[in-house]
Amino acid sequence: MKKYFGVDIGGTTVKMGIFDEDGRLLDKWEIPTVKDNGGEKILPDVVKAIEKKLTEEGLAKGYLAGVGIGVPGPIFADGTVNRCVNLGWGVFNVADKVRELLDMPELTVKVGNDANVAALGEMFKGSGEGYKNLVMVTLGTGVGGGIILDGKILTGTTGGAGEIGHMPVGLNETECCGCGNKGCLEQYASATGIVKVAKKILAECDTETPLRNMEGFSAKDVMDLAKGGDQVAIDVIEQLGDYLGKALAHIACVVNPSAFVIGGGVSKAGQFLLDVIEKHFKKNAFVPCSDVKFVIASLGNDAGIYGAVAQVL
Amino acid sequence: MKKYFGVDIGGTTVKMGIFDEDGRLLDKWEIPTVKDNGGEKILPDVVKAIEKKLTEEGLAKGYLAGVGIGVPGPIFADGTVNRCVNLGWGVFNVADKVRELLDMPELTVKVGNDANVAALGEMFKGSGEGYKNLVMVTLGTGVGGGIILDGKILTGTTGGAGEIGHMPVGLNETECCGCGNKGCLEQYASATGIVKVAKKILAECDTETPLRNMEGFSAKDVMDLAKGGDQVAIDVIEQLGDYLGKALAHIACVVNPSAFVIGGGVSKAGQFLLDVIEKHFKKNAFVPCSDVKFVIASLGNDAGIYGAVAQVL
Repeated sequence: MKKYFGVDIGGTTVKMGIFDEDGRLLDKWEIPTVKDNGGEKILPDVVKAIEKKLTEEGLAKGYLAGVGIGVPGPIFADGTVNRCVNLGWGVFNVADKVRELLDMPELTVKVGNDANVAALGEMFKGSGEGYKNLVMVTLGTGVGGGIILDGKILTGTTGGAGEIGHMPVGLNETECCGCGNKGCLEQYASATGIVKVAKKILAECDTETPLRNMEGFSAKDVMDLAKGGDQVAIDVIEQLGDYLGKALAHIACVVNPSAFVIGGGVSKAGQFLLDVIEKHFKKNAFVPCSDVKFVIASLGNDAGIYGAVAQVL
Repeated sequence: MKKYFGVDIGGTTVKMGIFDEDGRLLDKWEIPTVKDNGGEKILPDVVKAIEKKLTEEGLAKGYLAGVGIGVPGPIFADGTVNRCVNLGWGVFNVADKVRELLDMPELTVKVGNDANVAALGEMFKGSGEGYKNLVMVTLGTGVGGGIILDGKILTGTTGGAGEIGHMPVGLNETECCGCGNKGCLEQYASATGIVKVAKKILAECDTETPLRNMEGFSAKDVMDLAKGGDQVAIDVIEQLGDYLGKALAHIACVVNPSAFVIGGGVSKAGQFLLDVIEKHFKKNAFVPCSDVKFVIASLGNDAGIYGAVAQVL
């Protein structure tokens, strides 16, 4: 009868789920992320939503057995957030704050970085199920990553483990990444990066392609055209595959995972994308570390709440 | 009064050490590695040496509390070696075999890959002391690596974690690495690699340098000339720094360590080498993961026995 909550705090909404002891999702909902005044209302709002849900279920507070949280910023192992620009947060212990607001000083509360938590979610109930060593790669507006070793999130010394979007893969890059460096994986393998690479290739060749006549095309447009056989679009996706395949080959030498779980908007391209990435990975990977499964993430936006709650189950 | 043994099995000799409960080295010695018949005598020889040492110390077998072993091949977490070409070994459980030979079925025996074990040794009693997340980089004939996370060796799914010598850093490389791929870090940052890079640079330029008049120069010669200000030698070491700095920047994004411990023969160049590597690392590293200490390994050939025993202490 004990209940657990998974909370995925994003810049716009907080996704919440109530789970039973077996990790079954009983209900999920969203509340807005109120970022005013350094995001001071976010955790009180989360706690109110937890208390409200317990009341609705006719459950006393004593039935609450754990709260797991995902946060879009670096988190130390003890639950301390080390600044979170998206939420306006500085440095404080999120787990302690939640316990204080709930007035339950002994409650199990675990906090993780959202990308890491999503990776844990995919291992817990998604397409990474059964893989204890996996790396999740999120290809969205940026490129995120989460690393699970022996079933547990790898945090790293300063909460930066799995920040694979900033692996320095590009040589002679002239444009800056958002982080200030040049040549980060994110500059080529994110949705934004795909469009930029496409524009660059278009400018450098005369090959006919529907892309030339599309105003403001998207990564999805490029992907769809590549699937349809358009050579320029194929060249763009091959370049993405080259950078990403190499980066994953680096990662395989370092942590030797059993699976790569590819998620984020770009991953909607499915098997077509997996095949391109895997081809380039195999070409570059050290053979003893190359037997890695490639799968598309299956939980979508729910990966966060599943992974958040998996931290406390 | 309990005693522990650290055993570092190499292709030529087995290094052995007897330690007290506090990890103090009481005595160390070597025995030859007899590789005949698939290396079947290696473990019996090790066990005989342990028993002999206990007898010499006037200790009954009951005082033996643990044996830690390092092996030059991939090792699964349960102590199974997954083929070890250097010793002629196939696939079997090394820990079980040692317990059987000692006739001590309950004895604590732990086995690790030698590069990983050396990393653990440097954390235990070497220059990595105090760092719970460290990556050891061994620049010798090849390039090896060992990764320690939260004080424990990272093994990976197939025992391949930390195989950083085979990270694909080189583009357009025409020569093959020993592993069959092209452009592995080992091809540039090992002692062998340094000499090859130097020869290539010599062939491509006319700049005057003592290297031109040296027959069969070594990595140490190049390093010494670079320290003395020779421009061609400096170019070679800068190229090593570029490849290695980038590889370490990749690693920092993946596992976010607090220290890099640089060991192996090439590391005898000391602070001069560290400065070059760190300069290139800082240029490429993702800032939130870039606060990493660079230190030279301090245990030399004893890292293996210290790390081996640290597995069981």
